[in-house]
Order: sequence, then structure tokens, then C-alpha cells
Amino acid sequence: MSEFRKDPVTGRWVIIATDRAKRPSDFVRDKVEIRGSGFCPFCYNNESKTPPEIIAYRSGGSAPNTPGWTLRVVPNKFPALQIEGSLNRQGEGLYDKMEGIGAHEVIIETPDHSKTMATLSPREIEDVLWAFRDRIVDLKKDRRFKYILIFKNHGEAAGASLEHTHSQLIALPVVPKRVLEEIEGSKEYYRFKDRCIFCDIIQQETDSGVRMIAENGSFVAVAPFAPRFPFELWILPKAHQSAFEESKTHEYADLATMTKDMLMRLDQVLERPAYNYVIHTSPLRESSNDYYHWHMEVMPKLTKVAGFEWGTGFYINPTPPEESAKFLREAAVAVTAH
Amino acid sequence: MSEFRKDPVTGRWVIIATDRAKRPSDFVRDKVEIRGSGFCPFCYNNESKTPPEIIAYRSGGSAPNTPGWTLRVVPNKFPALQIEGSLNRQGEGLYDKMEGIGAHEVIIETPDHSKTMATLSPREIEDVLWAFRDRIVDLKKDRRFKYILIFKNHGEAAGASLEHTHSQLIALPVVPKRVLEEIEGSKEYYRFKDRCIFCDIIQQETDSGVRMIAENGSFVAVAPFAPRFPFELWILPKAHQSAFEESKTHEYADLATMTKDMLMRLDQVLERPAYNYVIHTSPLRESSNDYYHWHMEVMPKLTKVAGFEWGTGFYINPTPPEESAKFLREAAVAVTAH
Repeated sequence: MSEFRKDPVTGRWVIIATDRAKRPSDFVRDKVEIRGSGFCPFCYNNESKTPPEIIAYRSGGSAPNTPGWTLRVVPNKFPALQIEGSLNRQGEGLYDKMEGIGAHEVIIETPDHSKTMATLSPREIEDVLWAFRDRIVDLKKDRRFKYILIFKNHGEAAGASLEHTHSQLIALPVVPKRVLEEIEGSKEYYRFKDRCIFCDIIQQETDSGVRMIAENGSFVAVAPFAPRFPFELWILPKAHQSAFEESKTHEYADLATMTKDMLMRLDQVLERPAYNYVIHTSPLRESSNDYYHWHMEVMPKLTKVAGFEWGTGFYINPTPPEESAKFLREAAVAVTAH
Repeated sequence: MSEFRKDPVTGRWVIIATDRAKRPSDFVRDKVEIRGSGFCPFCYNNESKTPPEIIAYRSGGSAPNTPGWTLRVVPNKFPALQIEGSLNRQGEGLYDKMEGIGAHEVIIETPDHSKTMATLSPREIEDVLWAFRDRIVDLKKDRRFKYILIFKNHGEAAGASLEHTHSQLIALPVVPKRVLEEIEGSKEYYRFKDRCIFCDIIQQETDSGVRMIAENGSFVAVAPFAPRFPFELWILPKAHQSAFEESKTHEYADLATMTKDMLMRLDQVLERPAYNYVIHTSPLRESSNDYYHWHMEVMPKLTKVAGFEWGTGFYINPTPPEESAKFLREAAVAVTAH
């Protein structure tokens, strides 16, 4: 038997297979291996192979675009969007178009080619989160941009083209549809209830515990009630917070620990799967509000999206979140400080 | 440089790379090969390995669930939904769920394991389309169902698990989000203009010609203005028609020819790519209307969907539809009657 479940924020239905649920070993796929063979533009001494750095964290006072950095942010060499120019909105008969203006940056998380986000130290991940924040705060000054998405493609199956661990940032002149759906759903709930829907979700998940994976001082990690993908998990700040970039210092530290913890659990339970993560935060021009609650969504890539999903926007998920939460909760991992 | 383009029906933006456009040979992927090795439950003499047939087209008066058929419709052996029971809508705190009630059927298009939809004869494809119609007309009588999606997963990269050519049908108790977006977009346009947006699209594409691929008596095939995927194409009836199942006899014949033509062109230009197709038609309870126009969407699977797409609902498409239309238009294929 299966069950329809509705995502409470966006209203999207998913189909959850509640019998013959797929366990971790039922998913056939390639482990993500760091091979380290061949030339890598993100390693030391190849700084000239990327566009000049936008920011870098350097401990020893080394010169820009030379080795000595611990983290580096550079423009994407093959950007989906370009930073210079104006939008030039225009029609073409009944169609609408505009120039591909935006920012597309790469956050190189470490000089160490052998590492992944799961094997970085919490302190190194914290630096990555600060880099996300620094870039958002800077790009927010550009009034052309309405939204910034931070995301990661880890492993070939998740769309990564370079294996050296990195995240990406895209600044957009429009608020994207998927985010708008969340914003509008949250606003509607707020109009009814005068409460943030994500705060209510956190409350209900904390009370019931069945989809809870872990909790620390500032964050919870849960398997969402209506996940699109098996083993999808969300990390949410426990206190209401509408924008990622407005988090407090200790929250970045707690998020780093939680992120490492979750990625280690995924690596253990699913044997180093490919995954994507995205940070969903408020649009730049309405970043402080009572209705939206920023969060990180982590989506392991275990299944193929096929005709049914493309045709309907429905997803068929073969693993109930109560099962995936149990596997992840019971994984034995230890996050140490370094 | 790239360009933002908005889908005129759903309002979804896509990013189209207008320079360094990817040509067919730039996409690295596996050709879909029919290997024919191993046991196949869709071949003659294995009829007992599927659930009993719902309908079959048989020329020689052979018995149900025995060889002699030319097309067979069977329930999916591992259905995402089950046909018996009631929805039993219920809440779980702030969440909503209901039982997984629906129909999930498989249309086995030919007994010949070596064929694909592109190598079936137009007459055989016409039978497949009639089977789609027959099943929709029958399932429409069940008042629990609100929508029926017909789709195909061709090739492993498109999510196919069996290589013997087949389509699938899923009947749902709710109108899915992706379809609702099209319906609502079409209704809104109709309120403004008193015209069907798809009729206007066909008119504009016919006039400009840049995204037109082919045309026959009843159908056009175009590359849409804001496609999510490279080489995506749509087949639309030229005359306004809101529901697939209400097409006239000669229209099924023309659609068969056009479908074969398009799949042959994709096979030639992209060297037998994996693809999905879906038929988007009106919801079952509003099937005759002036605002929605049924159509088939064909989506070759050439790129990987990654974090940016999952996070935003935006798509980055490396091939402008004007280019893909040109490649497909110029492909030399000949559709013969048998």
C-alpha cells in the first residue's frame, strides 16, 4: 500500500510507498569516490586557472591568487549568468525574455583535494558558512538581484563536474518559482494562524519524534513529512529566523556541526551517496519577516526522476521518512571538534 | 551571454545559453540499445508473468493472456497506487494525507522486443494511441479519479526499468501541481484575451517558423520558447482541443505519424537518446473547455538536473530551442506507412 502526502508549505503531493519500503541497500548506485587524478583548477598552484578570486580566507598573509588560502571564492569560469549589463526586459510576441544578468560564484571549501564536506572539520565548515554569508551580504547591495541560491552538487549523479569539494552561489534578478511557492505557502499559513509554518513543523516533529534525526543547541535535522526523494533531510534553525545571512555567530558554529553530522550519517547509511543541498532563505528585499523560516534541504540522489514526475510535479518516494529518519538517527557517527 | 525566458503558460523562468550553445555531439551519454538478453515479462509466452490483461488488441481471436496479441494493457505489477479502497483523507497534526488510491497500468506497445516507438509502424503507433484513449474513457467513469497521466520512460537514463517498449498510465485522485499550473495559467490568459494561449502559441510559431520542426494535417511539432531541457519538443493539435480522448479518428492517425517522425528525428540527431514523453490533457471533470489545449511533451534526457534546479525550479538549458528546432527540422527521415 502507498500513501499520498501533501507538503504543508507548497501543497505538492508526493506518493510514499509505505509497504515494500526501500532500505538503504536496495538503492543501486555508484559510491562517490575522490579519485584525485588529472589536473584540478581548485588545487594549490592552479589559482590562475580560475577567474581572479572575489574573496579568500588566508591565514599567513599570502598574496591573492596564490597558494596559502584555506577557502576561496571565485567567479564560475563558465557562468550560467553574467554580472555586467542591464536586464533589458522585452517581449517577443506573446513571450517574455530578459538578458541573463546575475552572479555565478564558486566557493572552494578547502585546498585539500581529498576532502569532502563530510570530512572537513566543523571549523572548516563554519568558514564555508561564513563565506556564504559574506557573499550574500555583499551581493545584496546590488539592487538588480532579488534572490540568492546557495547549493552544492556532490558526485557525478548529482551533477558535479569537478570532484574538488565546492559549493556554488547564483544571484538572480527574479525570485524563482520554487522559492515563491514556499514563500506564498508560508504567508498563507501565517494569515490563517499568525504563526510561522516552519516553527509549527519543528514543534510537531519535536513532539512526535518519528521523523527527527538530531538536535543541537540551535538546529534540528528532520526527515520532512512529504519528501520528494528517499533520505531527503532538512536542517532548520530552532528559533524563528527568516534569513540565513542574519544568523548569529554561534548559530553558524552549530550549523557547521549539524551539517557535518548529517553528511557523515548519509555517508555511513547510504555508502557515500551523491547528493545536492540547497539553502532556502528569504528573498533579498524581504529578508526580515515573521512568516518564512530559512533552512537547508539535503537530497541524496538515489532514484531517477522519470516521466511521471516530469509530467505531474508529483514524486514517488520509495522510502517513508519515518524509516529514513530511523536509519539516520541510529547511525553511529561522532563529530569531533577537529 | 545567456537569456532568461519565461514559459508563457506556467510563468516558469529558464536560463537559455545563447552563446556557446551545445550541439548534439556535445552531450556525452549512452545510446539506448535494445539488448534483448534475459527474461522479458512483456514478450510472447510470458503473459502469466504480468497481472491479467485489462484489454488487448488481438487479430486472430486468440484467448486472453496468451500469445497472439498486438498490444496489451496490464496493471503494473509493482504499482505506485492501488485501485481498491477509499481515499480516507486525514490529518496528522498540521499535515494532510490520504490512501494511495489510483490506477497504474502498462501499455505494452508490441510483442516485438526489438522495436522502439520510433521503429513501430505509424499504424502500430495509432493502435497505441487508441489504447491510451480506450483506457482514459474507461477510467474516467470512476468518480474517484481527477486526472490521468500517460507517459513513457525510454532508456535507463529516463527511468525505464524494462527495455521492451511500453508506456504507462497513472490515474490520480487529485489534479497534479504541474498540470494545475498549466490549467491556471491558461485560464488566466483566457480571462485577459478570450483566446486559448496554446492556440496563440501555435499561431506565433507558425508565423515565425524559427522554432517550428514539422507540421501535418492536424498537428504541429515545435521546440517551445522556454524549454527546460535541450531538444525538448511539443506536439500540439492545430485545432483547439482540450482533451486527448476527444480527438477524432483521423487525428489519431496524424498524431501517430507525427510521433514517429519526431522520435525518428531525435534518434537520428541525438543518436538514440533516452527520453520521456508525457501527454498533458484536461482534468477528467473539466475535459471540454475553451482555455486548455492538450499536447504531448517529449523530453530527451541529455543533461543532469542538479542543485540549482532542485532549489529554484529554474532550469539551465544549454541549447536554444531555435538551434534544436533547426537540427530536428533538417534531419532527413522518411516516415513510410508500414
